[in-house]
Amino acid sequence: CYSAVQSFPGFLSTYRVFQDFNLAAIYVSDAQYNRNIYFDTSPQAVRLYMRYNHWIPKVLLYFFILVDLSLALFEDPAIFPLPIWATMLVELLCLLVFTLRLGHYAQVIPRDKFWKDPKNICIILTLVDMIIYGALKATNCYGVRWSRVLRPLLLVNVTEGRQLRRAFRSIRNALPQIFYVFLLFMFSLLIFSLMALKLLGKRGLKTIDGSPYFTNYLQILFDLYVLVTTANSPDVMMPAYNNSYVFAIFFILYILINTYIFMSVFLAVVYNNYKKYLKEEVRQLVRAKRHKMVQAFGVLQEQREGGGEPVVTHHNWNQLIRLVQPDIRNAHRELLWSVADDNNQGKVAFVQMADLLNIEVITLKSRPHPLHGLCPALYLSAPSRLLCRLVQHRAFVIVYDLIILVNAVFIGLDEENPLIANSEWAFLALYLLEILLKLYVFEPRAFFSRHSFWNWFDTIIVVSALLATIVNSAVMSTGNYTSRQILDIVFILRVLRLIRVVDSIKRFRTIINTLIRIGPAILTFGQLIIVVYYIFAMVGMELFKGKVKFYAEDSSDPEKAFCGNPLLNGSDFAQLNYCKNNFNNVVSSFVLLLELTVVNQCSGFATVTHASARLFFIVFHIMVVIVIINIFVAFVLEAFFVEYSVEKSDLQTSLERKIEELELAVAQ
Amino acid sequence: CYSAVQSFPGFLSTYRVFQDFNLAAIYVSDAQYNRNIYFDTSPQAVRLYMRYNHWIPKVLLYFFILVDLSLALFEDPAIFPLPIWATMLVELLCLLVFTLRLGHYAQVIPRDKFWKDPKNICIILTLVDMIIYGALKATNCYGVRWSRVLRPLLLVNVTEGRQLRRAFRSIRNALPQIFYVFLLFMFSLLIFSLMALKLLGKRGLKTIDGSPYFTNYLQILFDLYVLVTTANSPDVMMPAYNNSYVFAIFFILYILINTYIFMSVFLAVVYNNYKKYLKEEVRQLVRAKRHKMVQAFGVLQEQREGGGEPVVTHHNWNQLIRLVQPDIRNAHRELLWSVADDNNQGKVAFVQMADLLNIEVITLKSRPHPLHGLCPALYLSAPSRLLCRLVQHRAFVIVYDLIILVNAVFIGLDEENPLIANSEWAFLALYLLEILLKLYVFEPRAFFSRHSFWNWFDTIIVVSALLATIVNSAVMSTGNYTSRQILDIVFILRVLRLIRVVDSIKRFRTIINTLIRIGPAILTFGQLIIVVYYIFAMVGMELFKGKVKFYAEDSSDPEKAFCGNPLLNGSDFAQLNYCKNNFNNVVSSFVLLLELTVVNQCSGFATVTHASARLFFIVFHIMVVIVIINIFVAFVLEAFFVEYSVEKSDLQTSLERKIEELELAVAQ
Repeated sequence: CYSAVQSFPGFLSTYRVFQDFNLAAIYVSDAQYNRNIYFDTSPQAVRLYMRYNHWIPKVLLYFFILVDLSLALFEDPAIFPLPIWATMLVELLCLLVFTLRLGHYAQVIPRDKFWKDPKNICIILTLVDMIIYGALKATNCYGVRWSRVLRPLLLVNVTEGRQLRRAFRSIRNALPQIFYVFLLFMFSLLIFSLMALKLLGKRGLKTIDGSPYFTNYLQILFDLYVLVTTANSPDVMMPAYNNSYVFAIFFILYILINTYIFMSVFLAVVYNNYKKYLKEEVRQLVRAKRHKMVQAFGVLQEQREGGGEPVVTHHNWNQLIRLVQPDIRNAHRELLWSVADDNNQGKVAFVQMADLLNIEVITLKSRPHPLHGLCPALYLSAPSRLLCRLVQHRAFVIVYDLIILVNAVFIGLDEENPLIANSEWAFLALYLLEILLKLYVFEPRAFFSRHSFWNWFDTIIVVSALLATIVNSAVMSTGNYTSRQILDIVFILRVLRLIRVVDSIKRFRTIINTLIRIGPAILTFGQLIIVVYYIFAMVGMELFKGKVKFYAEDSSDPEKAFCGNPLLNGSDFAQLNYCKNNFNNVVSSFVLLLELTVVNQCSGFATVTHASARLFFIVFHIMVVIVIINIFVAFVLEAFFVEYSVEKSDLQTSLERKIEELELAVAQ
Repeated sequence: CYSAVQSFPGFLSTYRVFQDFNLAAIYVSDAQYNRNIYFDTSPQAVRLYMRYNHWIPKVLLYFFILVDLSLALFEDPAIFPLPIWATMLVELLCLLVFTLRLGHYAQVIPRDKFWKDPKNICIILTLVDMIIYGALKATNCYGVRWSRVLRPLLLVNVTEGRQLRRAFRSIRNALPQIFYVFLLFMFSLLIFSLMALKLLGKRGLKTIDGSPYFTNYLQILFDLYVLVTTANSPDVMMPAYNNSYVFAIFFILYILINTYIFMSVFLAVVYNNYKKYLKEEVRQLVRAKRHKMVQAFGVLQEQREGGGEPVVTHHNWNQLIRLVQPDIRNAHRELLWSVADDNNQGKVAFVQMADLLNIEVITLKSRPHPLHGLCPALYLSAPSRLLCRLVQHRAFVIVYDLIILVNAVFIGLDEENPLIANSEWAFLALYLLEILLKLYVFEPRAFFSRHSFWNWFDTIIVVSALLATIVNSAVMSTGNYTSRQILDIVFILRVLRLIRVVDSIKRFRTIINTLIRIGPAILTFGQLIIVVYYIFAMVGMELFKGKVKFYAEDSSDPEKAFCGNPLLNGSDFAQLNYCKNNFNNVVSSFVLLLELTVVNQCSGFATVTHASARLFFIVFHIMVVIVIINIFVAFVLEAFFVEYSVEKSDLQTSLERKIEELELAVAQ
């Protein structure tokens, strides 16, 4: 189709050029943002693809995914109950949006690729489930909304969730390796359990609650599995240990082999696969990017007059950049051109462009202070200059660090004391003074530049603290009544202010900067965890909803003593007041799953349902702690070891060199 | 001195040659075993140094260190109490042995290096402590044997504990880096505690035991520190969470930042330092080794006839190797010479020798089966050949794997059933048959070669199981009485037999082989842990001995309900029956410290002494969990990633190539 258009003269030729620039711009921006969709290159498909990548439909899509996911708040078991028809209507609307988006996508990519997409299956299955559930509810039968576990998969499968999909792929690739270690681990568990049964089962030992100790093989297996998670650490060995010192050897060996060696091997396997896979991913990414840039070059290339390699002219380059990044400044564009044109190699230079566009050029012009312009006599007077020197002095930072430390002590003291309460105003004034002084000395736009994290942090915290304290005083003076919420916010802001002291110590700054750098990737893991938690929360809610009830602190209901379930009477679960750790709604499910991630305690749920309910918790532990947490740890380790993206930093260096050269040229 | 001897002719020349070979041999064996002592090169010192490296004084030294360490069993608080004079006499004997060894050492090394040695201080301090303690006891005063914490340091400081010393050095080098992260972590802890105090302290919440919740800053700090170890995971947040869902956010953030991110950063820092340090260590080791071999070469070198580089003649080489490894076979020595002489470069080839000597040459001659020699007609008959083919068939392995599985089921069943009890004999017979069949088919010396781990394992387990079962039956038939100890051994052996099945699956074999390969290094960490545990056990015993008492299961003492300490009345510690987790003797101290490594629960000890006792447990957690366990994990990770010692494997390859060539030459 494309080559057919090429053969027409006149108007069509202009049209062709327009088409070409569009196509090349799409290739470039795909390369720039690492998009990996093999779209149709016909003019209509290209136009549709441009619309597909527009930010409005993307934001809409994310919004409706969020709506779809948060439906769990309103569906039975709900926090805010809504009638079934209302939630189903909203879900239908969401599905409609997803289908429209998919329809749009189908227009863009070649038809045969479309039908392999797992998104279609998700949507169709959800529809089927909704019809079945509606029909069952209409006839007053019991129905399960099983398709709710598919919802977070939509979040994974939308084309924008690239990072998340990569994390999932990374897990899928590591699974076979993990599986073999897991089998060996299970084998070790089975052997140790058998030994425990034979050694301890016949000695007539009793656990604390008087039940026979280590007589049931499955129970031993479960107890020893939990010992790996360290949740029942001394308890499970106490009856045997109380009987004889010798049995401690059994548990020491068990802990050494299974808790320490096997768990380290799991981390090693996950980490190893993660590294291997990451390298492969980066290689593919670079290859795909190169491929796209070569395609873009192929569309725009022109033969040079003196023959030789084909090139992209400066004019075409400018037009292309204007299409790809309409808001780019001319100077920046020219800078990019001069960097790319440096080695004068046509294609090679062009292919670099996608990376060049991603580099932020921070223009650090030393603008004069606005006060200098407005009132130079005053701003340049001796006292003003002295002030500037004082504020820029090292002692200024130290004095304010000391003020922060004194403030920390004051915060720790009792705030009912009027002296302490009033000191807060003094501290607020001091902090405000600091910001004003800095604004007097430094150019405001430089002070609030995008990379001055701590300046922004400081100003926001101090100004909000000021506002909250004023509101609090106003509320107190009108009704002599303190709003707990406002006070909480005031306290949080006061404490957060103290964090600033970290920035003054260089060693801390390095660690913090590393942590901030890995922040975005931690967010990817956050999404991953939410997907897994959501699935487990949906299943857990179906299995355990209403089994354990929570009664408020001041309730006098006699059922409060056993969480509303007589089976829990006298159990640890009820005695430790864990009643709110339940699956009765999506929020407590999430909190409970987080607690299970930290320590896997589930005996209560096995008591209220059936011993096999433990399987749910074991599967959760394997998925979350053995696989995902280890990937998280592997990720943090890797982020500390490897300097991120060497290629990019090379380009950055070349760009910085160029900027220096240009500055020199301007200065001369 | 050495050059003075050189100038004498005749007898002295022979003497000189003898001295030279001794000196060269010592350099070579120092290089071979990575010894790093800068000894005096005078003939007497060399002779003393050879005696110093003899195995008998080394074994004696280790024996006395063991005796010294195990004195803790007999000293107050003792398992087997001995009078003070007896233990002090034994300790004096140990000190005498150490001093003699040190005296020997002082003769070997240059005098100025000797006095810097920390061993001297350990011994002198111990003597001082013993004198003070003896004097105090003689006058019936209270005395503390504080020098007991120095005992394990002797284990670190004896020159043979190189691996252990390296591990300690590695920790010392990582400490500054860890310290900065730890400070940041503490800062985060302080900030979170302050926030918790301000948010939750004034709400009048109560913990389960009715005490006010989060009102004391130090208590909050401790509770939140323990939350990092996950020991009090849901409990500490339950009162706040029961009050409002919102407070869960505080704890989720806390767990995310401190339990997950900071703990991963600790691992990353430890791992990073470990890798860096390991590289430096290996580099130094290689350099020292090279230096020693060059010195040995310098002693033995001779000028070649046609001028050029100096060399070591074949004759001298042979004599040297005979001194270094007297038990080496001629063929092996010639092989080493031909490998070393291959590149004909004198010094370069000589320097490799230390590594070549360390390579084990496995002579895999296909010897005929002894039965083949004794009775060829029978052994080569058709049925015998069929039997050999059957045993070597894959199906034979599968059949025996199935038998093992059936056996596993039988072990799991009740052994009181006579059918099950008798089936044991059948299984034993089957296993014996397997070993006999294999011995019939394979050459016995090859079957029991040093590297056939599983053959040895099988035979030892089956034969001991047979013996134990026979002894058990004999005991039962005589007095109709079963000895619990013998039965336990029988059961353990039965279960251990099942492990064999792992060897049949190739994937498992790879993992197991990796684990076996890192075994020796895990033993080094075992020593490290024992040193640290010993120190903490000594301190813990002084602080907490006798505070918590254990009463046997059948005791009717009313004090049993609160572990003999009224302060524990009604506490969790007593209710969970943790009374045996105490510091009343060195064995229970070690078991308790292991439990603390897994989960840091120490509230009981804070109750019986003072809140500041928690410091002991926090320091223990920092030392053991944050530092040592992380180094252990780093080590396992590294062992899985890096192929151990590339240089050595290169040499191995070259040696294997040479062997192949020689074999070809023999075959032709």
